[in-house]
Amino acid sequence: MTNGPASDTTPVDPDDKPGRGVIDLLAMMAYAELVAFFRLSDDAGLAPDLAAKGELAGVAATEYGHYKLLRDRLEELGVDPEAAMRPFVEPLNAWHARTEPQSWLESLVKAYVSDGIAGDFYRYIADQTDDRTRALVGEVVSDTGRGEIITARIRAAVEDDPKLGGRLSLWARRLVGEALSQAQIVAAQRVELAALLAPRGAEAGEGEGRSEGAASDLAAVSRVFAKLTEAHSARLAAMGLNG
Amino acid sequence: MTNGPASDTTPVDPDDKPGRGVIDLLAMMAYAELVAFFRLSDDAGLAPDLAAKGELAGVAATEYGHYKLLRDRLEELGVDPEAAMRPFVEPLNAWHARTEPQSWLESLVKAYVSDGIAGDFYRYIADQTDDRTRALVGEVVSDTGRGEIITARIRAAVEDDPKLGGRLSLWARRLVGEALSQAQIVAAQRVELAALLAPRGAEAGEGEGRSEGAASDLAAVSRVFAKLTEAHSARLAAMGLNG
Repeated sequence: MTNGPASDTTPVDPDDKPGRGVIDLLAMMAYAELVAFFRLSDDAGLAPDLAAKGELAGVAATEYGHYKLLRDRLEELGVDPEAAMRPFVEPLNAWHARTEPQSWLESLVKAYVSDGIAGDFYRYIADQTDDRTRALVGEVVSDTGRGEIITARIRAAVEDDPKLGGRLSLWARRLVGEALSQAQIVAAQRVELAALLAPRGAEAGEGEGRSEGAASDLAAVSRVFAKLTEAHSARLAAMGLNG
Repeated sequence: MTNGPASDTTPVDPDDKPGRGVIDLLAMMAYAELVAFFRLSDDAGLAPDLAAKGELAGVAATEYGHYKLLRDRLEELGVDPEAAMRPFVEPLNAWHARTEPQSWLESLVKAYVSDGIAGDFYRYIADQTDDRTRALVGEVVSDTGRGEIITARIRAAVEDDPKLGGRLSLWARRLVGEALSQAQIVAAQRVELAALLAPRGAEAGEGEGRSEGAASDLAAVSRVFAKLTEAHSARLAAMGLNG
């Protein structure tokens, strides 16, 4: 496959149509939802019974719906959706390959942790974009009440078997570590996307004498990641796990 | 797992609420849609590109929607959906295990052939039931235009490589043979469901001196299967394959 229109040199045009950073955001989310669909479906073998399998299929079908919304928006913007998604295939596949759940509870923790941290990440970037993009991202990452169901199940399982708490806490830590690692790779490769993570105006002043270049963007990315990790700790606590 | 409310001894009550045969039909279809969801998702590895993967996810998500409709209806009828589905898990899993596609084209042929023959089968049974059931079954088996897309692709592939036609024709024959084999097992085990396949009134007279028992139902099942096979041949021709 050759590179499509998703080249890094497309000029950003914030007033008219979304720039490269927004297209990257939508494409990254679209592929994330598509791969989540297939990965969740793969977890069916871990489901304890037929009802749980059905619920899992429902969650996966919701991910497909999000993918479709994002892909349709990319087409509407005149972008080849598959070409735009391509840069994100490898990092997202790598993340999934390195975080394959070995049990039903690991699968639930993965769904909750990754939805949470990815949702915060997408929302943070979307806040730097236009209204339309922000609304779409908000719709895709909205909590559908699934978080409460998962946290209740994990809490109950950990109360039944406290040793499980330690194992699942380690698992959650690994999930986030691997996610931040892949996100760093993406941020380093996708300059316009990373630029959306750099704080603007008053927020920018931290007395570090930063330039406006890619290196400062990467520092900004790390600061965003630190914030994401704090929210992650709150989610762990909700599951009765340790950070 | 113990038997749930899906016991064979529930009396049929055609005037008030659907009898055992209808519940069997809805439960069989529900599990068929759920397992199709997961099997289609499994076929993602065979998809030639990202766009095809996305389309596949869309088809699977549609199957999930059908499962949900059927499962909701079972709940509305006061039936435990999972218990009602249980008798159909083994035959449907066996069918899928014996017909695992080895290529993208085999996966497409399987989707088209199995949707077609199962749809005819469900519609035929549903015609012997109440309006509500008939409408629900009609909605679930409605052709969404997917058939035309698949047949066009298969025809094009076979025109490009005529040898493929022979191989895919054999594959289609095996799909139907395995389907009829599993359907015979189901018909032998689910008496009320098989009874819905036995022709009524004027249609019943074929001068064979049949009794109203299970043996005649099985003969009726075979006659229905003969009809299903005829419609299957028309679908093969649409794909440019031989029966």
